[in-house]
Amino acid sequence: MKTIYQPPFQEWEQLIKRPTIKTESLNESISMILNQVKLRGDEAIRSFTSLFDEVQLTDLQVNQEELKASSKLVSQEIKQAIEVAASNIKKFHQSQVHTEEVIETTDGVNCWRKSVGIERVGLYIPGGTAPLFSTLLMLAIPAQIAGCKQIVLCTPCNKQGKVNEVVLYAAQYLGIDTIFKIGGAQAIAAMAYGTESVPQVYKIFGPGNQYVTKAKELVQTQGVAIDMPAGPSEVLIIADEQSDAEFIAADLLSQAEHGIDSQVVFVTTSTKKIEEVNEAINKQLEELPRKELAKQTLNNSLMVEFATLKECIAFSNAYAPEHLILNIDHAEQYVDLVVNAGSVFLGAYSCESAGDYASGTNHTLPTNGYAKNYSGVSVDSFVKKITFQQLTKQGLQNIGKAIEVMAEAEQLIAHKNAVSIRLKKLSNE
Amino acid sequence: MKTIYQPPFQEWEQLIKRPTIKTESLNESISMILNQVKLRGDEAIRSFTSLFDEVQLTDLQVNQEELKASSKLVSQEIKQAIEVAASNIKKFHQSQVHTEEVIETTDGVNCWRKSVGIERVGLYIPGGTAPLFSTLLMLAIPAQIAGCKQIVLCTPCNKQGKVNEVVLYAAQYLGIDTIFKIGGAQAIAAMAYGTESVPQVYKIFGPGNQYVTKAKELVQTQGVAIDMPAGPSEVLIIADEQSDAEFIAADLLSQAEHGIDSQVVFVTTSTKKIEEVNEAINKQLEELPRKELAKQTLNNSLMVEFATLKECIAFSNAYAPEHLILNIDHAEQYVDLVVNAGSVFLGAYSCESAGDYASGTNHTLPTNGYAKNYSGVSVDSFVKKITFQQLTKQGLQNIGKAIEVMAEAEQLIAHKNAVSIRLKKLSNE
Repeated sequence: MKTIYQPPFQEWEQLIKRPTIKTESLNESISMILNQVKLRGDEAIRSFTSLFDEVQLTDLQVNQEELKASSKLVSQEIKQAIEVAASNIKKFHQSQVHTEEVIETTDGVNCWRKSVGIERVGLYIPGGTAPLFSTLLMLAIPAQIAGCKQIVLCTPCNKQGKVNEVVLYAAQYLGIDTIFKIGGAQAIAAMAYGTESVPQVYKIFGPGNQYVTKAKELVQTQGVAIDMPAGPSEVLIIADEQSDAEFIAADLLSQAEHGIDSQVVFVTTSTKKIEEVNEAINKQLEELPRKELAKQTLNNSLMVEFATLKECIAFSNAYAPEHLILNIDHAEQYVDLVVNAGSVFLGAYSCESAGDYASGTNHTLPTNGYAKNYSGVSVDSFVKKITFQQLTKQGLQNIGKAIEVMAEAEQLIAHKNAVSIRLKKLSNE
Repeated sequence: MKTIYQPPFQEWEQLIKRPTIKTESLNESISMILNQVKLRGDEAIRSFTSLFDEVQLTDLQVNQEELKASSKLVSQEIKQAIEVAASNIKKFHQSQVHTEEVIETTDGVNCWRKSVGIERVGLYIPGGTAPLFSTLLMLAIPAQIAGCKQIVLCTPCNKQGKVNEVVLYAAQYLGIDTIFKIGGAQAIAAMAYGTESVPQVYKIFGPGNQYVTKAKELVQTQGVAIDMPAGPSEVLIIADEQSDAEFIAADLLSQAEHGIDSQVVFVTTSTKKIEEVNEAINKQLEELPRKELAKQTLNNSLMVEFATLKECIAFSNAYAPEHLILNIDHAEQYVDLVVNAGSVFLGAYSCESAGDYASGTNHTLPTNGYAKNYSGVSVDSFVKKITFQQLTKQGLQNIGKAIEVMAEAEQLIAHKNAVSIRLKKLSNE
């Protein structure tokens, strides 16, 4: 790992840069896929699935038998783990539901907001080597709490036309049964436009490869909302002299195993800790099945030393990491200094894996510096907040003059008139 | 206005369609403007301002003298109106601030969220014939409540290099003093990339013409967040036999005066009311300075009759209007039927103008059917919600097994190891 000692502020901008991922070259091919699905529906889906996933599908939808069968294929251990995780995720996300009070802004002028679940949402769960059933929990549970009426799940199947059994079990466990064996850009297109089989949705959630990401970016310009822009996963760990180097190394490696575009940053006040962590990494790395991948990631990664913890956190705010681990004593005292981060882990025993799976917080988080301007997924992501207002006669009389004056100053006379005509009627009553 | 009686459900899709606005042709020219500003900063801004706004600017920023002078140029009446509106907007938006509680999802596993203001935000206020100082109130007040540290305002100046005095007065009243005399796509570019004069921001808010809209759409794909996708303004009014036709006509006209792409829809259970409203429109129209504009809008607009109020609201949900007026008695009884709408106005005296200016609700709302998947602007729009978690030793022991099992099932062994290494140390303690 590249190691830098006490970089001056003017060098930070260079240090916090993520690798630029150019995806313009995909515009044309992904637009073609989107258009084909829009025009030819299921037929196009079948063609692309045959082409990219090398499987001929008759039914695009997972049937009830497949869904039920999943329960027999999943170990008791995994079932129990899912139960623990789902219970915590539910508890935390349930706490995000607020009934907002009615505010009387002026006598007779009552205003309030009401959260209403987005009626139809689409969840995308990637396939590939690792079936991300944890992401299904992270998306479906807040969608259900939000009251989304229709939840559509797309996930690719293998060459035998089967969807991973743990993903199916998790779906069944949560009561999600509208599941399609569709992956890639064609899955995003199916949910964005709707096909004969796949219901159209208003917002699409979930991670994916560059094709999925590009498809989400494109449908967003066509009126479909998406969870957030995508980017490679990342962690920034802050530690001092007292921190356990083995824990730090394990957390850095857990990020590094995601893929070679993952970002791993270690920031510390201790030169000695840099040495210890390097040593621990080398030791732990040997045991990992994905060690080659992790090694490559570490080669692109960064260790930075600063004189004080305050500077460490200032650097982290400039970087705006998806995950921030404050592996320091009394980490809670530093919470108010954190301005830009997706999810923050406090103390030696709050490893990122906890939030990735089972503590209850959401793991769908802003990356690539987007923690400066986006929040992670929560129940908020699945609702619209509609404002309501009710004015009594007296209420309109109280603020009517202000409205008339402002409308006239903006040269919107019909806006003014909508008030004047009512005030006139009231004055005649 | 086109009038349709009791259309069957299968015809709704056609009726709720908005006119498609093709903006692909702008991609190239707006990208060019963005790139020039990115490369040449203030110099490019000055060139475009000279070209499009026909004014040669030396200082791009509004100076303290201009800001102070605005107070002398604005009438006492307008000042008082701004005070009333700002007070109500503050009161309502202040109520959107919650301190969320810490949730112990499992013994020793504490999770919470904290709202942190987006550090730097940019507000765009269009110029043109009507200076939209009301929009400045609607954007700046929630930004200030959210705790955004830097609020940058861009608004075009006239050919004499002056920004509208009411916009400046409103800014000064709120304590906003970083104001640039820049309009159009170049303003969006300046805030997205930063220039020598204009600070770079992380999220851009505000309405604008098709160039501004396209620029916002393009910078959004480059990492800058935006408030929401844009579209023409619209109102849908639901009324019955008892409603006052003059009020309905006035509200329809207040939407129609916005511009010929505005959408105006009247939905009712009463054939007689359709006649009365048409009559009232014809009468009121004659008094309006923008009557030609309003007439054209009305020609593209729609009146629909249904047998029941429930059907009227179902149709409104399918349309998903930016503004929905329930001009009926006991409107509050129908609130739970409303699923898709930006802002809802209940009863005869809650005219849209109230929410546009002074009741306290925000007037920056999802249009073009986006009320299905987006919320209006609120304090939420100006914050990121960061999740925090702190696990005690016991907490990690309680959920550690679940994390290990799930990580292993997802083939992420380093994720598992980050827990195992900690559990092992604890078992040796």
